[in-house]
Amino acid sequence: MGAQQAEESRQSHGDGEVNHSMAGSEQLYIGLDVGRTIRGALVRADGSILRQHRVVSEVSNARIFIDQLIDVIKALRADTEEVTAAGIGWAGLVNQREQRIEVNPNLVDVSSYDLHAELERATGFTVVIDNDANAAAYGEWRSGAARGFNDVFYVTLGTGIGSGLILGGQLQRGSRGFAGEFGHFKISDDGLECGCGGTGCLETMASGPNIVRRVREQLFSDPSFSLSKLARDMEGILTAERVERAAIEKDDLALSVLKETGRILGNAVASVINLLNVEVVVLGGGVMAAGDLILEPIREAAQRATLSPALECCRIVPAELGQDAGIIGAALLARDMRI
Amino acid sequence: MGAQQAEESRQSHGDGEVNHSMAGSEQLYIGLDVGRTIRGALVRADGSILRQHRVVSEVSNARIFIDQLIDVIKALRADTEEVTAAGIGWAGLVNQREQRIEVNPNLVDVSSYDLHAELERATGFTVVIDNDANAAAYGEWRSGAARGFNDVFYVTLGTGIGSGLILGGQLQRGSRGFAGEFGHFKISDDGLECGCGGTGCLETMASGPNIVRRVREQLFSDPSFSLSKLARDMEGILTAERVERAAIEKDDLALSVLKETGRILGNAVASVINLLNVEVVVLGGGVMAAGDLILEPIREAAQRATLSPALECCRIVPAELGQDAGIIGAALLARDMRI
Repeated sequence: MGAQQAEESRQSHGDGEVNHSMAGSEQLYIGLDVGRTIRGALVRADGSILRQHRVVSEVSNARIFIDQLIDVIKALRADTEEVTAAGIGWAGLVNQREQRIEVNPNLVDVSSYDLHAELERATGFTVVIDNDANAAAYGEWRSGAARGFNDVFYVTLGTGIGSGLILGGQLQRGSRGFAGEFGHFKISDDGLECGCGGTGCLETMASGPNIVRRVREQLFSDPSFSLSKLARDMEGILTAERVERAAIEKDDLALSVLKETGRILGNAVASVINLLNVEVVVLGGGVMAAGDLILEPIREAAQRATLSPALECCRIVPAELGQDAGIIGAALLARDMRI
Repeated sequence: MGAQQAEESRQSHGDGEVNHSMAGSEQLYIGLDVGRTIRGALVRADGSILRQHRVVSEVSNARIFIDQLIDVIKALRADTEEVTAAGIGWAGLVNQREQRIEVNPNLVDVSSYDLHAELERATGFTVVIDNDANAAAYGEWRSGAARGFNDVFYVTLGTGIGSGLILGGQLQRGSRGFAGEFGHFKISDDGLECGCGGTGCLETMASGPNIVRRVREQLFSDPSFSLSKLARDMEGILTAERVERAAIEKDDLALSVLKETGRILGNAVASVINLLNVEVVVLGGGVMAAGDLILEPIREAAQRATLSPALECCRIVPAELGQDAGIIGAALLARDMRI
């Protein structure tokens, strides 16, 4: 994206107001963000959202789940003639070149279906499937905090830690589409066991559930913190959001855990800047709801651990599109695949 | 590079024999690898070396140093008419887009000269300057162990630890040419101070001098090892090469330090594979002279710490071009810049 195009995107994205009268004259795209929830949106070519639709994902039956995806696409399309393409960000490893879901740990197993062919046949649209973090990275790049940059590292901090990379103005998916597993950066030698089978992965310390785990462990060891009243029966009560709220209200424990989390993340981010010399690191996902309480410790640690020439030409910024990054990015992937 | 082209490159590179009679009919390129020594070669379009030249780099005077570079290029050209371009791999941070050396810690300061313009003017050649690890990565990609791959992580393990990245069939230099600083991957929280000002960098454990340091520290603590007789007056005597030779001769200390070094490197390599989903990791540089004694521990650690889908499509192999990777790569950069 050239500078002029980036500027146009910036101007038009800020519209906010939904202007249905525009719909008759412009090309529209559908974007889906598929995880435990299927979130979908009808998106203008400039990345702004015209309307949204969401359903809770079916977890036991692949056929019903696929029909849900088809229904969401059809519901978003409604009677709009200008839609011919849909993009899907999928919470799993996607071989984007072959449009095949390769590893699908969080959703119902769809491996007995050719999902891509099913969706194209049922909707009549051109469909592109990509990894959800790639879609979100693409959204922030084309229409969010990374507009106008060529070398971008996008990180999403949530239940897991994912990332997307734009280098030399190209979304980099790796040889089979598996790039971006920043959550499985090895940050310590004698670290905790990770769900992936390894030990000491970044995710074992800095994901939402592991922030909660670390708070909980300290709560049991020191009952004087204000969060301690939640210590009993904490399953489902002590959440990352609640830790963040406590930190905003200046709870010492919540603040110290977020600060330490930021330090750990910042060190790993520095390794990536040293390796890739990106211009901008964009931090998104639910954990970033803590704002500066997590962002500043990330920046401080990254600044200490990044080589100065690479540091001088790199900024570390919060994402702009929030939860919509994935649906907007998926729609814009559909837009750009068709050029 | 397509598979067929890769195969042709493989066949022609193996020639070995210098056939001067070919020189009259083909385009040739000059490659320079510039560090404490200036190594230069006249290289065929297929990556094979026709002749070499080397001098020790002038360390105190920039003008003399630049004249050395010009003299090496002219000496290699001799009376060969078919040379019109030279590539230079430089031991420092190079802004390749602007052909400017930005950070130059190991060589005499040339910042008061426009090196690129000087070299083009004095030689009449088209000159391209790049980072030395990028040049070596390019050499291994175009004419060595990574022939035919699109997604390559090349690591050079020597006095420092550098790397070069090819992703999606493109050499990735980062936004200002500073990509590839794998030596400054942060591998531990409470690690040693690094020359870069940070702590816990990969280089503080796994570079040649730090392998020597770790052996020396253990020697002083246990005089029963066979290397112990070198413990006194070890400056300049106990080298990484000697540690490797001792390991090959089954010295327990040398073996254990190399094994631990391999484990540390393998963990960092795994993080990169998880992030970038490369098809091949190529390991070069002087430390790799230890062969399987370092390669196997790297592979073992990387296999344990890499996500299985990314691991299944990635191999970890030794470099093929040895010390010539940089000069061959620099020459081939000159070849490909001119297309």
